[in-house]
Amino acid sequence: MVKLSRRTALGAVAAAPVAASLLPHLLPAAAQAQQPAAAPATQQAPGFYRTKVGDLVVTRINDGQFARPKPTEGFVRNASAEEVAAALRDAYLPTEALTIPITFMAVQGGGRTVLLDVGTGGQLMPTAAHGARNMAAAGIDPAGVTHVVISHFHPDHIGGLTGADGKAAYPNAEILVPEAEWAFWMDDGAMSRAPEAMQNTFKLVRGRFAAYPAERVRRYRSDAELVPGIQAIAAPGHTPGHTVYGLSSGGKQLMVLSDTSNHPALFVRNPGWHAVFDMDPTLAETNRRKLFDRVAADRAPVVAYHFPFPGVGHIRARERGFEYEPAPWSSEL
Amino acid sequence: MVKLSRRTALGAVAAAPVAASLLPHLLPAAAQAQQPAAAPATQQAPGFYRTKVGDLVVTRINDGQFARPKPTEGFVRNASAEEVAAALRDAYLPTEALTIPITFMAVQGGGRTVLLDVGTGGQLMPTAAHGARNMAAAGIDPAGVTHVVISHFHPDHIGGLTGADGKAAYPNAEILVPEAEWAFWMDDGAMSRAPEAMQNTFKLVRGRFAAYPAERVRRYRSDAELVPGIQAIAAPGHTPGHTVYGLSSGGKQLMVLSDTSNHPALFVRNPGWHAVFDMDPTLAETNRRKLFDRVAADRAPVVAYHFPFPGVGHIRARERGFEYEPAPWSSEL
Repeated sequence: MVKLSRRTALGAVAAAPVAASLLPHLLPAAAQAQQPAAAPATQQAPGFYRTKVGDLVVTRINDGQFARPKPTEGFVRNASAEEVAAALRDAYLPTEALTIPITFMAVQGGGRTVLLDVGTGGQLMPTAAHGARNMAAAGIDPAGVTHVVISHFHPDHIGGLTGADGKAAYPNAEILVPEAEWAFWMDDGAMSRAPEAMQNTFKLVRGRFAAYPAERVRRYRSDAELVPGIQAIAAPGHTPGHTVYGLSSGGKQLMVLSDTSNHPALFVRNPGWHAVFDMDPTLAETNRRKLFDRVAADRAPVVAYHFPFPGVGHIRARERGFEYEPAPWSSEL
Repeated sequence: MVKLSRRTALGAVAAAPVAASLLPHLLPAAAQAQQPAAAPATQQAPGFYRTKVGDLVVTRINDGQFARPKPTEGFVRNASAEEVAAALRDAYLPTEALTIPITFMAVQGGGRTVLLDVGTGGQLMPTAAHGARNMAAAGIDPAGVTHVVISHFHPDHIGGLTGADGKAAYPNAEILVPEAEWAFWMDDGAMSRAPEAMQNTFKLVRGRFAAYPAERVRRYRSDAELVPGIQAIAAPGHTPGHTVYGLSSGGKQLMVLSDTSNHPALFVRNPGWHAVFDMDPTLAETNRRKLFDRVAADRAPVVAYHFPFPGVGHIRARERGFEYEPAPWSSEL
């Protein structure tokens, strides 16, 4: 930690040219001093957050968020509109639309930079297109990524494997994918039997992986240690090969829950509720309860893909279900 | 919201020189591509966060944090070590030291930039010295600050009124202070009667305000509207003139709780507990309960100075006390 005096910090801002296209709000102080009545800056802070797991540096990278309109209607398969509205109100969330955040992560250590999922790639919706900018703000260069580990093949998790130009976004990385997930989405029979709405996902999956040489895509088994300190754990239901991860280093642990639960206000509080995204909702519930029981009993820290950013915290048992307790943001690593 | 493709964003990083002293992690991508095995960046993300209250833009500015060693011993006047340890464990916090964050804020609108408190100024402890850097990252220039509103005169709230050089940090601002707070800390009799440990605070207070011309320091009454949309509300106990604020604009509200509660895991859950910092603990408790009852009943959003950053959320009644529910971080303003 560097101690900067105010004079030093502001001197640096005034003196140095800045990457204005990335940080349009970071204008030289001298330029602003003449305009006290200018409209205030309204850009949100860069969406990355670091924490450590032993010797591993974990960087959570926010990709933005999407709004699910009318979450009381059809979003939860087995709860009434009144029940869903009550759960949202309990969490001080609006009932007319649910904001679902998207946050992937980098795990760095031992000379490796490992991404766990890659976000949308900015190609799904304009409010979820910040991943590349936030990764740059965090000082992580796509060309330096050594491994990309994919939890499952939904578009908000693999979209960013390619850029808008269709080329590989991580040209030097090995891509690690769950064997069961690959088997399902690459099965022409499964594709031909899938409903029309799902055909696009099959096509997106195949296009994303086609951008990488076949020998750079490695299929992993559900119990594999993928790289030192990152253990795959099968948690199917959300998709056939949906995978979570146990991170461990120096006696510390972190459970990466992937899409075990969508928004915690609904599916952590009510682990028996079935999100419309789950392909096998009963199996998804079984694995959700098993994982939540385990991390609650172990008091193990968790991260999850669709929890409010930065999405680091704990899960404790409460009444009939569980609740998510975000960890305090720390200014020190 | 600007939609950037990955190529555009990274092109900008590679092409533009950056304020390296402010953002040492934001290196040109090209420089990193050759060094995939380099040690990962470990600097935390810039600690600012924006939210809106009607037409007002609120920017929370993190100043860092300090560690209270042995929080089970003497930190809470009227709870046992076992009770404090249990409350910390319930919140997944360590019991050997308590991290207490410091976050002040800017309120911008109508051509005004109003600071509510100013942090330590980087002159109290090295882990709480990020305020100036985070304010610069948020694009807020000290010379453009039109008003500084002070809640009370503790050093972590007014330290930043001057720089390390002793000069006014906000040269163009009017400084607004609670009348009752000014009366206490400027009273030579009160100073002479104060215990020796408190003498330094008296001296610090006087030094900070002496850096501003007397006519620029305005004393406000506890029921005053300070600027349009910012209403002062007296909440003494923590100090004689401790003040909270009701923000309102466009039918939206936000309650700024100042130091009504120190860390929420202790004093929101247990509003009857007395922090060692409270000068009149019984009066502080009375006002704490009154404010928490009010915001819980109104479901009013709150911010507080020592809640985990960004410290925006709600307070709900729970069992014998209350609990703090952080609002979800949003990538959109």
